[in-house]
Amino acid sequence: MLAVEVIAAKRDAKALRKDQIEWFVEGYAKGTIPDYQMSALAMAIYIRGMSAEETHWLTQAMLHSGQLLQPASERPRVDKHSTGGLGDKTSLILAPLVACFDLDVPMISGRALGITGGTLDKLESIPGYRCNLNEAEIGRQLQRIGCVITGASQSLVPADRKLYALRDVTALVPSIPLITASIMSKKLAENLNALSLDVKWGSAAFMNDKHSALNLADSLTRTGTQASVKTTAILSLMEQPLGDWSGNACEIHESIAVLRGEVKGPVRELSIALSVPLLVDTGRVDSWDAGWQKAEEMLDSGQPFERFRAMVKEQGGQLDQTPTPYPATTLHAPEDGYLQAIDGQEIGKAIIELGGGRKVAGDAIDPRVSFRSIAKLGDRVGRGDPIAEICAGNREMATGVLPRLMGAFRWSETAVKVPCLWERVSD
Amino acid sequence: MLAVEVIAAKRDAKALRKDQIEWFVEGYAKGTIPDYQMSALAMAIYIRGMSAEETHWLTQAMLHSGQLLQPASERPRVDKHSTGGLGDKTSLILAPLVACFDLDVPMISGRALGITGGTLDKLESIPGYRCNLNEAEIGRQLQRIGCVITGASQSLVPADRKLYALRDVTALVPSIPLITASIMSKKLAENLNALSLDVKWGSAAFMNDKHSALNLADSLTRTGTQASVKTTAILSLMEQPLGDWSGNACEIHESIAVLRGEVKGPVRELSIALSVPLLVDTGRVDSWDAGWQKAEEMLDSGQPFERFRAMVKEQGGQLDQTPTPYPATTLHAPEDGYLQAIDGQEIGKAIIELGGGRKVAGDAIDPRVSFRSIAKLGDRVGRGDPIAEICAGNREMATGVLPRLMGAFRWSETAVKVPCLWERVSD
Repeated sequence: MLAVEVIAAKRDAKALRKDQIEWFVEGYAKGTIPDYQMSALAMAIYIRGMSAEETHWLTQAMLHSGQLLQPASERPRVDKHSTGGLGDKTSLILAPLVACFDLDVPMISGRALGITGGTLDKLESIPGYRCNLNEAEIGRQLQRIGCVITGASQSLVPADRKLYALRDVTALVPSIPLITASIMSKKLAENLNALSLDVKWGSAAFMNDKHSALNLADSLTRTGTQASVKTTAILSLMEQPLGDWSGNACEIHESIAVLRGEVKGPVRELSIALSVPLLVDTGRVDSWDAGWQKAEEMLDSGQPFERFRAMVKEQGGQLDQTPTPYPATTLHAPEDGYLQAIDGQEIGKAIIELGGGRKVAGDAIDPRVSFRSIAKLGDRVGRGDPIAEICAGNREMATGVLPRLMGAFRWSETAVKVPCLWERVSD
Repeated sequence: MLAVEVIAAKRDAKALRKDQIEWFVEGYAKGTIPDYQMSALAMAIYIRGMSAEETHWLTQAMLHSGQLLQPASERPRVDKHSTGGLGDKTSLILAPLVACFDLDVPMISGRALGITGGTLDKLESIPGYRCNLNEAEIGRQLQRIGCVITGASQSLVPADRKLYALRDVTALVPSIPLITASIMSKKLAENLNALSLDVKWGSAAFMNDKHSALNLADSLTRTGTQASVKTTAILSLMEQPLGDWSGNACEIHESIAVLRGEVKGPVRELSIALSVPLLVDTGRVDSWDAGWQKAEEMLDSGQPFERFRAMVKEQGGQLDQTPTPYPATTLHAPEDGYLQAIDGQEIGKAIIELGGGRKVAGDAIDPRVSFRSIAKLGDRVGRGDPIAEICAGNREMATGVLPRLMGAFRWSETAVKVPCLWERVSD
């Protein structure tokens, strides 16, 4: 087979054959196909698209470039994935919550990407927390505790690791077949029975409009189902940070409050909405409504927090040593009005500017940098009312980002209709 | 500026700005932009296209990645370029022919590419002929003889050298803006007053259909004109080898016969058709018809051969030592009929198989391997009539390629209409 023939076929909008996709991905993972040929093919895929069948083969080819996580117990295996948003700490809640229902959650998670926070970065604000468990350690922890949140090992989906880095520098990130293959190859490598997906849409999400988010959700669920994993998706709105806190250590504290049943609101609600399909699909409950009720009861019981604490301890973390946010500087409403929009891109960039995220790969993260939302979409505020807080290393730094933060808020003189936080995607 | 932003703009079918194109090409030539970013951009250009303006800027950016040939005399400078075909030796005739009209021809030529013969490879079948003149040598030879045919130096259009090699391995060759920038940047680097282009179409050409050839001709002439070079194009048919001989040494012999005025027919006709616009555009003649007559008279005078001989001698070649073709094996018509089509791809591949072309870059070429066309398109032949000859190193090799060669001929029971060999593209 010739690489140029495969590239030319997709360039000319033809469907690729299974053997062509397998050969190209295998060659790329092994290094016999160079980056410049892969980036040409990926651009052709971006522009010409891929059928559901081609996307399935691409996912499978990437999946089989590495090893699969071996089963560790008799319990069904489940996981969730989100396309990423600001203040989204649902992974930290869902993993221990569903583990309380006798399910195994081998969550292979990632680091911050752009303005999107990273689950591993948040967990690493807990002193001592280890994100580099090997496969044997993952297996033992699943047996004992039922949940683990760790980083990918080198043997897991190596083709994705290379392709992901390449897409980042060739403007090839927002492509539905490429996103699908990247997400699903990593999740399928966990050898799951059921998978719950949160596809975000809105100004601070990967997909800005609902239609694109729906297309991505369709592609992801179809690819999971074709691989015999019960896969469901919800769409959720990312027009403001999720919950009260955005940052790293502060999101651990907010998660703990939810895991203890102390806090209601959007973080708890979205965590439950993502957990229920897993309970239904593994037969733990008979219906969505029953699942919702059980999940509520479980959170109220405080057991998920105990599970979380056990997980953190097993992975070396000293939970009670988690740092607190820096002292806060308050933002005040510049005028009377209804809060119409919050530009999450700007909030995220301010957090990065303060050291709460990375400017370039490998940057250290300051876990104490935090943004606290006070006013929420649709809220009526009076001039001078507190609308948010920024917690920065010192007063000067906070002052430095104030213009950017204030610019992120958009106000309306009339009442604002707020779209619903999330909705199920019908199969 | 960010490479990903430039790539993303073309990916999304936006027009690139002049500064974006300049920055990207300059970075690529210097090596700060890697191959994988250029191949992603080039694929986006291939699929999304480029406006005439963008193509002009791309050509200029590539041109200015290197040096221009400095003027060597007071005479106007002219050149021709062909998109490549089998048996096409018109460069060998045009250069000395127009030099006889007191024009300078600094012809920077190439090597064989795919089934297309290379002017330099043909000339190197003359023992001693040097294709690596430096700029000073080119200047001196132009002053003394008025024509030179040599290879590109490292300082001439380095961006094209890199991009051309990349396009070859990423299925990005047949793109009108990329072809235009590649051809025209090299020709503009010769600092010309007038340029004559031969855009081939047909089964053995780069562009299979006439419509694409016309689009390419438009793009090339527009880009030349924008750079203040008088640029004209003809379209010519490549449905059979041009003239009687295809190979290397044999084409030198056929060219000499034309240069001596001993042979009429398609090679002479096409050479004149490409020369006349140069005579008109430099004011050497007043009209196309006058130019045609002058060119005919000049060829009949034998002077162009003397000019060719002087050029070869100046470049170190011993013209009388040019090898002759190997002994011929004759192909016979398998049935009565009219010759409807000759697949030039197959003829070209047979020549390569016998060593008359390159399988991989750097292969040595056997100059004595030759194919001689006897039957031409539209000819009526009887079963057993000689239709062609193949001249191979030995009888076994010739026999080995006979099935391929015989398969290249297609016959019709009824008379065949043959399209005209060439036509002018109206400005």
